[in-house]
Amino acid sequence: MPSFLPSWLANRPLVETVRLELALPHLNDNTGDLDRLRRELKQHGFDPVLFHPLRLNHVLRQIREGGFKVTAVLGWSECHWELIDLVAGFDESPRLAFAVDLGSSRLAFYLLDIEKREVIEQTSVSNPQIPYGEDILTRILFAREDGNRELLQRCLLDTFNRTTKEMIEGGGFSRDNVYAMSVAGNTTMSHFLLGLNPANICKEPYIPAVNRFPLFHARDLGLAIHSCAPVYVFPNVGSYFGGDLIAGILAAGMHRSEELSILVDVGTNAEVVLGNRDWLIACAGAAGPALEGGVVERGMMALPGAIDRVRIDPVTLKPSCHVIGEEKPVGICGSGLIDLIAEMFMAGILTIQGKLNTQIPSSRIAATADGPAYIVASADETADGRDLMVSDIDIGIFLKSKAAMYTILTVITSKVGLSFGDIGRFFVAGTFGNYIDPAMAIRIGMIPDLPLETYQALGNTAGRGAAMLLLDRGLLEDIERICSQITYVELNVNMELMNEFRGAQFLPHTDPRLFPSVQIPERALGAGTSDVKQRL
Amino acid sequence: MPSFLPSWLANRPLVETVRLELALPHLNDNTGDLDRLRRELKQHGFDPVLFHPLRLNHVLRQIREGGFKVTAVLGWSECHWELIDLVAGFDESPRLAFAVDLGSSRLAFYLLDIEKREVIEQTSVSNPQIPYGEDILTRILFAREDGNRELLQRCLLDTFNRTTKEMIEGGGFSRDNVYAMSVAGNTTMSHFLLGLNPANICKEPYIPAVNRFPLFHARDLGLAIHSCAPVYVFPNVGSYFGGDLIAGILAAGMHRSEELSILVDVGTNAEVVLGNRDWLIACAGAAGPALEGGVVERGMMALPGAIDRVRIDPVTLKPSCHVIGEEKPVGICGSGLIDLIAEMFMAGILTIQGKLNTQIPSSRIAATADGPAYIVASADETADGRDLMVSDIDIGIFLKSKAAMYTILTVITSKVGLSFGDIGRFFVAGTFGNYIDPAMAIRIGMIPDLPLETYQALGNTAGRGAAMLLLDRGLLEDIERICSQITYVELNVNMELMNEFRGAQFLPHTDPRLFPSVQIPERALGAGTSDVKQRL
Repeated sequence: MPSFLPSWLANRPLVETVRLELALPHLNDNTGDLDRLRRELKQHGFDPVLFHPLRLNHVLRQIREGGFKVTAVLGWSECHWELIDLVAGFDESPRLAFAVDLGSSRLAFYLLDIEKREVIEQTSVSNPQIPYGEDILTRILFAREDGNRELLQRCLLDTFNRTTKEMIEGGGFSRDNVYAMSVAGNTTMSHFLLGLNPANICKEPYIPAVNRFPLFHARDLGLAIHSCAPVYVFPNVGSYFGGDLIAGILAAGMHRSEELSILVDVGTNAEVVLGNRDWLIACAGAAGPALEGGVVERGMMALPGAIDRVRIDPVTLKPSCHVIGEEKPVGICGSGLIDLIAEMFMAGILTIQGKLNTQIPSSRIAATADGPAYIVASADETADGRDLMVSDIDIGIFLKSKAAMYTILTVITSKVGLSFGDIGRFFVAGTFGNYIDPAMAIRIGMIPDLPLETYQALGNTAGRGAAMLLLDRGLLEDIERICSQITYVELNVNMELMNEFRGAQFLPHTDPRLFPSVQIPERALGAGTSDVKQRL
Repeated sequence: MPSFLPSWLANRPLVETVRLELALPHLNDNTGDLDRLRRELKQHGFDPVLFHPLRLNHVLRQIREGGFKVTAVLGWSECHWELIDLVAGFDESPRLAFAVDLGSSRLAFYLLDIEKREVIEQTSVSNPQIPYGEDILTRILFAREDGNRELLQRCLLDTFNRTTKEMIEGGGFSRDNVYAMSVAGNTTMSHFLLGLNPANICKEPYIPAVNRFPLFHARDLGLAIHSCAPVYVFPNVGSYFGGDLIAGILAAGMHRSEELSILVDVGTNAEVVLGNRDWLIACAGAAGPALEGGVVERGMMALPGAIDRVRIDPVTLKPSCHVIGEEKPVGICGSGLIDLIAEMFMAGILTIQGKLNTQIPSSRIAATADGPAYIVASADETADGRDLMVSDIDIGIFLKSKAAMYTILTVITSKVGLSFGDIGRFFVAGTFGNYIDPAMAIRIGMIPDLPLETYQALGNTAGRGAAMLLLDRGLLEDIERICSQITYVELNVNMELMNEFRGAQFLPHTDPRLFPSVQIPERALGAGTSDVKQRL
């Protein structure tokens, strides 16, 4: 994984600090105090500067208290600077800012030192809206009742304030040291944060209330940072293409690259962007939950207790697992599932149709009420004392998801008349991207059979893009350009898609020529696979 | 007097109304509601438009309620438009705005219909700060005590709200119909209105807190008009050159004229601007109070009961007076005094030294404890049953003021190497300007002996300039240019000035060649005037 903040960022932070020594008043220079400040700011390239009327007396007092020596903090807005704060004298207290990944499941907070250009603290918390709706659609429906939208916003802002307060105090800082916040989230979450009505997002023709949000300030939302701090919320391109993905494109830098690249973000949906500096195309599909381990019976998020790595001895068929947190396992997360299925397939435990090969004599294969299942960890090895098993049904669900992912990738690439071979970089975003092993994902036919070095895990791209903007306001133009440039493709359920989808449910695919690097074990070619055998 | 709003104003009001029919949402156009509005506004030339975060939900509701037909009201700010309001449907309610002359004695309010481009109502009220200090310096000192500055601002804003409410309701309008306010006042009054500290205005080196005020909004000041209405307060050029005079220059149009012109505004001080479209020079001097009738014992403002016109029969020496409001007189205002002294001079009642000619046998000349006095109205003619007299002392005070005025005019003209003959237009601002008779003012040597058609009374130039800005935002650039162009000259008490001043205290002047049109009556050449006789 690359360093969190790329080195190509220009040193033009969203919020600038400048220390000024104003000319002293004199009979020959009767310029007013504020205009004296304005004149000096202009000489430093800050022009025009807007002053908040209700902060004027504070600003004027600081000028006199500092004996015309002041430290100014300025934020860039659409077409002007705004004076965020003015402090008497040459002030050396830290200049901080928060970048926030506003996920529908989790919120990730990054506290940055803008002058040192580094992340000094980060944390993530569960989205407090989950009790009102596990998925975003339920929350939108919930928000339709009187007062509920305010409730959803309130709980979000409370969590923001609780979390940022802990981080600020933990570092020995004050809320007044935090001069900016940037937030990247999907379209609905961004609406919730700003108290906007998301009702039309899920109703044809699926229009958000706002694509490009006006610049908010901390005071407008009651955020417990400097009251005049700008709060920049990433714009969206539509109901299904949110600011998190715009931030992801920024983080991947694909909009500046000559090379063709693809970005995949697996969350509630699988979101895919393909393009380069000249064009960008995007689409989204329901491939996510199963891949993240959310649908499979013993599936779970990549949290302590989750199996995230699996190897299976091809001879003994015994699995060896790695568990996050080095604990006894309670479930299996997305990357664990991918490993498991790839290894089961390679060991011949799974057929190319994704069925457990019951002809193999192994104590690991058990008969259950749901049909045959593979015991990943036996009762004495697990945290809850139950066998941790994966059934045919689980695998079937998972294969549908991996097929959806591969189909989306195929469709978007062919939409623009290209093939996978043209892709120079394949970025995988999210925690999911951090944990999956591309070699395993290729083996099960979830992602194209490209050289492994093509794949790059980017981690939290929403949080990273948001952090990058804090350090380089030039990215505001990038964002503007991305938004105007990107084409969002609606994936219609048509015949071509269905055929693709059916073939992709196999391991790795009904057309093994698509995965030349995958050696299909003889044992996996079980009954009913004669057509595949013939094609081989 | 010219029409209140000159015809050369461009039709680009400070606040624009535009009725829009937005494209309806469609699967092929998934632009957000707000962005749909923004796109349409841009097509109408409004770009960029800033939206107030806390008004966003109101705006979004109006778009949907109006079925994507809306009426937008926009205000121009430094480098962007701001959406003041959005109303569902095509709204035809009136678009109003207030122009305010923020005088230290009186506040004048003008209610304008911006679309019809006319003043629909006007009124003036006493400045509510007067109880805290008759003159501005007393108020500045009063404001130094804790809480007093807030008190002075509060009483001003309360008077604003009471007066505008009456005018709004009197016209059958609502406060939400009023979308802008522009205010022109002197530097100190503008500081008081905005709650800024004026303490440094009267302390060397005489620096205002602010020259160019940030744009306020009605909500910032609690003004009872539309809460998002911009409140534009005219900038000042220094402590002694306020926004009222900038507005005056606008109203006179002298900054756009090729011809050299001079503007005189008599208020607390006499303020003078000289120049044309290429340069402007200004100065101020303490010539005001006496000219406005404020110092002479029976002097008063030009209100009902004030004698404002006087003619004296040269044979009977009997005066005939006009009284404002056609009532019995209680005092005499500035224009009345000028008439009176000019007529007394012409009738030979006053000598060229400005002394009552006691050698003339007349029942109108009485001996009082203060020396001789002229009875303008006898006890039976006045409202208070007292003789209305003007004494030698009164006349002496008045002549000092008229001399100060003439001296200021002489000094400023000679400063730039010009003479009175170069002046093409002589504007006289203020109520004072409306009432004085230039022929009379010339006769007493208060203003230069120019052709009478050179003189033009402009009325309330501060109110007029403020009103003009509401109808033509292009004047913002004029204001900017005036402020950067104008040179303010400090009138130092030097020998040249003192000599000028001494000569100017005579009637019309010790050097009668400066007033060739004035026929000095033989009787006025009394004792001790031999040198003048010789020069004649």
